[in-house]
Amino acid sequence: MTELDLPFDMAEYGSRLFRTRAAMVDRGLDALFVTDPSNQAWLTGYDGWSFYVHQGVIVLPHADPIWWGRNQDTQGALRTVWMAPDRVAGYADGFVQSPDRHPMQDLAGLLGDLGLSIAHIGVEMDNYYFSAKAMDTLRESVPQVRWVDATGLVNWRRAVKSEAEIGFMRKAARISEKIVDGLVERVEPGVPKNEIVAEIYRDAVRGVDGAWGDYPAIVPLLPSGSDAAAPHLTWDGRPFATGEATFFEISGCFRRYHAPFCRTLFLGEPPEFLRRAEAALIEGLEAGLDAARPGNRACDIANALAVPLERAGIERGARCGYPIGLSYPPDWGERTISLRSEDETVLKPGMTFHFMPGLWMHDWGLEITESILIRESGPAETFCDRPRQLFVKT
Amino acid sequence: MTELDLPFDMAEYGSRLFRTRAAMVDRGLDALFVTDPSNQAWLTGYDGWSFYVHQGVIVLPHADPIWWGRNQDTQGALRTVWMAPDRVAGYADGFVQSPDRHPMQDLAGLLGDLGLSIAHIGVEMDNYYFSAKAMDTLRESVPQVRWVDATGLVNWRRAVKSEAEIGFMRKAARISEKIVDGLVERVEPGVPKNEIVAEIYRDAVRGVDGAWGDYPAIVPLLPSGSDAAAPHLTWDGRPFATGEATFFEISGCFRRYHAPFCRTLFLGEPPEFLRRAEAALIEGLEAGLDAARPGNRACDIANALAVPLERAGIERGARCGYPIGLSYPPDWGERTISLRSEDETVLKPGMTFHFMPGLWMHDWGLEITESILIRESGPAETFCDRPRQLFVKT
Repeated sequence: MTELDLPFDMAEYGSRLFRTRAAMVDRGLDALFVTDPSNQAWLTGYDGWSFYVHQGVIVLPHADPIWWGRNQDTQGALRTVWMAPDRVAGYADGFVQSPDRHPMQDLAGLLGDLGLSIAHIGVEMDNYYFSAKAMDTLRESVPQVRWVDATGLVNWRRAVKSEAEIGFMRKAARISEKIVDGLVERVEPGVPKNEIVAEIYRDAVRGVDGAWGDYPAIVPLLPSGSDAAAPHLTWDGRPFATGEATFFEISGCFRRYHAPFCRTLFLGEPPEFLRRAEAALIEGLEAGLDAARPGNRACDIANALAVPLERAGIERGARCGYPIGLSYPPDWGERTISLRSEDETVLKPGMTFHFMPGLWMHDWGLEITESILIRESGPAETFCDRPRQLFVKT
Repeated sequence: MTELDLPFDMAEYGSRLFRTRAAMVDRGLDALFVTDPSNQAWLTGYDGWSFYVHQGVIVLPHADPIWWGRNQDTQGALRTVWMAPDRVAGYADGFVQSPDRHPMQDLAGLLGDLGLSIAHIGVEMDNYYFSAKAMDTLRESVPQVRWVDATGLVNWRRAVKSEAEIGFMRKAARISEKIVDGLVERVEPGVPKNEIVAEIYRDAVRGVDGAWGDYPAIVPLLPSGSDAAAPHLTWDGRPFATGEATFFEISGCFRRYHAPFCRTLFLGEPPEFLRRAEAALIEGLEAGLDAARPGNRACDIANALAVPLERAGIERGARCGYPIGLSYPPDWGERTISLRSEDETVLKPGMTFHFMPGLWMHDWGLEITESILIRESGPAETFCDRPRQLFVKT
């Protein structure tokens, strides 16, 4: 077997486990079952594209976590998690996508073996990929357990990043910059969109010196013209056209850590309304970055952004950012804090966000965004270093 | 807005809806709420990377389906679904990842407006991305609804492909061939793995003449040497090495349709045990392809495969295939039939499978697979046309 190549040292995994256990004590949990792939990786190092079947990590107060999944994936667990081999458990292949059996029946047996048939157990009821059927099967199979909704319990522990994590995100940011440099260089009228995406992927995975590229948790998004009103369209084979703005929402990824970055490119001479929106958006971004200081709150960023936008007659109606870091598909956000007027979470040094005030209007769109780090003092640091503007090629 | 570019004609969407409604009648359903992104796309054309938030399609017996999702994603729905704009409904952004509100509270209101507060409604309890919390919120918000588990109801309707769908899969297969040709050409000792993956992605997205490449539902998997015992490891920046086998599990994708294809490449002189495994596996594949005839059962393929493998002392323990076609991450399988000894589903013309007898042994692995089409008569057709062998570069 190849030598274990853990992304972080054991002190860091120990600290993560310690903080998770403390939150379990606060919630009165005897155990926690973690299904979110990002949370599994953050706690144990587990890495692999196996989250399409049921799997998870059992966190216990006084013993190492147990990675549990499909038998064939225990081979991946043995090669990626820091725990001893006896902390990896598999279920038989017949449980996979069977009309008669459910993997959670196997998990129920394991919980019984661990003395957890009568216990308070946390489950991530609204994290990926814990299905309604998984919950009901557990309720039925271990009826004396009291199941507690622990959605986001681990995600909240991830909010403040370690120096090592920030180092990974800086590498991801170098990749993000390379992707944006490449697409600004290559996009021309008449070039099919998929040809540009092919180069985006190539740049993303080749990476930069000292950082091979991993797959991002979201594929490139790059709608053009009036389609840019829709934030989550992917691509097709149609050519780029003069007179259209295209936003590019991309992220470099290094060992599952992300630095999302969006820029918009206009082919030709941008119309006046787009120039006005650009000016207001940049003013809003700068105001938001200045508000992104430790001690301020998440809403302060959103409120600072809103002032110049409202002055320009632009009402967004959507949150303008979310925490980022380690992630697996389908989302590179951490699903805890939201940068919006009602979120009063206090910002702390080491928090990282995608400050993402996308403008998706009736028949046009504009994305200029920054991945940011809350510093010890002063305004936020931006992970990427590229002009904060609408790019124009005439 | 760009002209609607539906992948299929309205007759095909009409037929899909008709068959789904017939299955709803069989189950006594007044409505069906479909969350699986593949099922949403199959029924309505909806396409976009927005499945990281709650969304779905409400299928009704006597009126067009309703696409329901986050407000900002209604813009994507208006651009991709065949239904009229008044069949697209959005929920406010404040429901997104909020500790206080859940999107299913909004859906509950919509169901009430549709006269479905007292009804039998099917939900995909074990499909992606219907969470435990989504189910519990619906139960609480519309307490008089009887919720029926309709996992796989739509997926089963997808099993037999139309001519148009098969045409898409043939295009995907041309892309799969191109990817495999490229990697066999490029892999050499000392080349970092991510450099090869970069070219895989580039080939996949550039596509082939007349077929731009879409993103596959699973990223390339390519573990080497003893790591090939683990089926779902992705990649890193380490170099390929002489004396190691690497399996490549990839798929071309055209408009969300897949043709998965796996080949294994050995650098150097393969050891005798690997040659013996190759011979047994190829014999098993050929026996399985011959058994993959209309009227035979899914288990007949698995049982035919097992004979030469067992003779060679190889016990797999996992299913050897699954239906394929339209898919979104995290899985390119359809999650209905499994090619395994207990599955007696009768094979029909137009069914498509990834015949996937991966060998993941204690400290080595071998994947040689075929995407197949059940024909009107005779053995299965393979979508890809490349030598069925262990590739060797000395």
